[in-house]
Amino acid sequence: MATAKPSLEPLAIGIDIGGTGTKFGIVDRVGNVLFSGEISTKKHKHIDTFITELHNSVSPLIEKAGGVGRIKGMGVGAPNGNYYTGTIEYAPNLPWKGIVPLAKLIQDKFQLPVILTNDANAAAIGEMTYGAAQGMKDFIMITLGTGVGSGIVANGSLIYGHDGFAGELGHTIIIPEGRFHEGTGKYGSLESYASATGVTLTTLELLQKSKQASLLRDVPKDQIDSKKVYDAAMQGDKLAKEIFEYTGKILGMALANFVMFSSPEAIILFGGLTKAGDLILKPTREHMEANLIQIFQNKVKILVSHLKESDAAILGASALAWELS
Amino acid sequence: MATAKPSLEPLAIGIDIGGTGTKFGIVDRVGNVLFSGEISTKKHKHIDTFITELHNSVSPLIEKAGGVGRIKGMGVGAPNGNYYTGTIEYAPNLPWKGIVPLAKLIQDKFQLPVILTNDANAAAIGEMTYGAAQGMKDFIMITLGTGVGSGIVANGSLIYGHDGFAGELGHTIIIPEGRFHEGTGKYGSLESYASATGVTLTTLELLQKSKQASLLRDVPKDQIDSKKVYDAAMQGDKLAKEIFEYTGKILGMALANFVMFSSPEAIILFGGLTKAGDLILKPTREHMEANLIQIFQNKVKILVSHLKESDAAILGASALAWELS
Repeated sequence: MATAKPSLEPLAIGIDIGGTGTKFGIVDRVGNVLFSGEISTKKHKHIDTFITELHNSVSPLIEKAGGVGRIKGMGVGAPNGNYYTGTIEYAPNLPWKGIVPLAKLIQDKFQLPVILTNDANAAAIGEMTYGAAQGMKDFIMITLGTGVGSGIVANGSLIYGHDGFAGELGHTIIIPEGRFHEGTGKYGSLESYASATGVTLTTLELLQKSKQASLLRDVPKDQIDSKKVYDAAMQGDKLAKEIFEYTGKILGMALANFVMFSSPEAIILFGGLTKAGDLILKPTREHMEANLIQIFQNKVKILVSHLKESDAAILGASALAWELS
Repeated sequence: MATAKPSLEPLAIGIDIGGTGTKFGIVDRVGNVLFSGEISTKKHKHIDTFITELHNSVSPLIEKAGGVGRIKGMGVGAPNGNYYTGTIEYAPNLPWKGIVPLAKLIQDKFQLPVILTNDANAAAIGEMTYGAAQGMKDFIMITLGTGVGSGIVANGSLIYGHDGFAGELGHTIIIPEGRFHEGTGKYGSLESYASATGVTLTTLELLQKSKQASLLRDVPKDQIDSKKVYDAAMQGDKLAKEIFEYTGKILGMALANFVMFSSPEAIILFGGLTKAGDLILKPTREHMEANLIQIFQNKVKILVSHLKESDAAILGASALAWELS
């Protein structure tokens, strides 16, 4: 005879929807990913088949975890995800066009409460719940991947803005009339410099502009990426070091502006570019400090997320579910 | 025989401390300034004599207003005022150096609860309580005076940051390696362009750089100010119009960045430069929209404060007192 197990702690489901794949996992209160999996996002031209496959893949994990009764709720991180409306709106990298009522579709299928926000906001809540921002009431999360995402926490709450879209710091203009961004049609945004894509563009520009010898000249142009630049820099390549120096300079200037906005205790960096370590962090710190007015100097920590990269997206999304009342 | 008057509504005292003078007033719940006055800030080399004169000047107004029993509390706006600590810290334009425990000194003298913040934050709370931001939960206040101040409200609360100094948007860098700011030693900040001081500098630069005829060439250089530029523009002076166009361009770029940070419902402008009306507002709006990514376009109102300029500082400070529990 089955008996109730009231001592079992509740669990949360985190779902991270990316352009290529969707990761999901069942997470406990302290951030252990107990069960996890992944399905393709890309192959689902229609949202309905995506929801069906998601349900078919997550349901067995819920059973393994002790059944639906143990699940407090589901958190979903998705590009252009809107916290207020539960919709994803005109997400350029997802196969579903227009406005998609994602939270409602998932909620109806799973019969569980669902909270949605964009992936960088989810990452910020993940850091606050399980990571480097535990105990902080004011911090900014910056994700440095293919693009630059951000989530801003002030007074202990995520800033969503009046429409749910606050925290698009990757699109702030750092160099007026600077580098063109193909995705947005704007010039000089942080993302056009301080992302993996930006590092590649900086490399191609510098290789053309400078006459300096560099290991990077031996790499075919279409294979240049931030990893190759990192490898070259670690072998002492001067041009490669300059590339990180320049990227850090622009990132540092941008961070100074963000600090003068919300005066955070820390800025937490996450994503591929942080693997370059001090090659990028040192100039970032220097140029942040150089652009801060006195009252902000030597106060703000720049921290690198210590969440496992493979888990971080799931953790971030799952953390949303703990906010359900 | 005196009888209790329990029907009398509570009142708040607002004190606005500027480098030259300190204004104060007694304000009702809907923003009527019932009694007001002003003393010199500048002449008080020592904070103690300032507090004494303030007390001597405000006390008679309190009596006129029905006595101390009607006063809910006192709100103080001051440059570099810290909400958390109640201190003013290294305020370059005030006669008192270092860290001054201003809220405590006033509280001890008046025996009333005191809340302190910087002047631009007070202005934001004033707009939320009595002005253009009534009912808004997400907006940004920008004061365009001799300098550029700001107060940011998100989720219905002012953002103070971890140290009480959030919202220094005037010092964000808009033009990297741009115009030098004597007060901060930094280059290219918003304040160095979009303030009364900035407009004067732009005028002097343009007069030197361009060969264009202009009414402003007849004004002695040390008498050029934003009022003279406005007058010239209203007479059709091309160069004067260009000056506002350029100022609005930089302000608009900055506002776009602020919108992509906290996604406010509105940006509320206050101060001398707003008197130029569409001469500055039109380019500001255009360049803000031009620098916003699509999801933010045509959503954010730029409003000009309609609070009477003579009352606004007192109102802003008094509004802090309503937040006392």
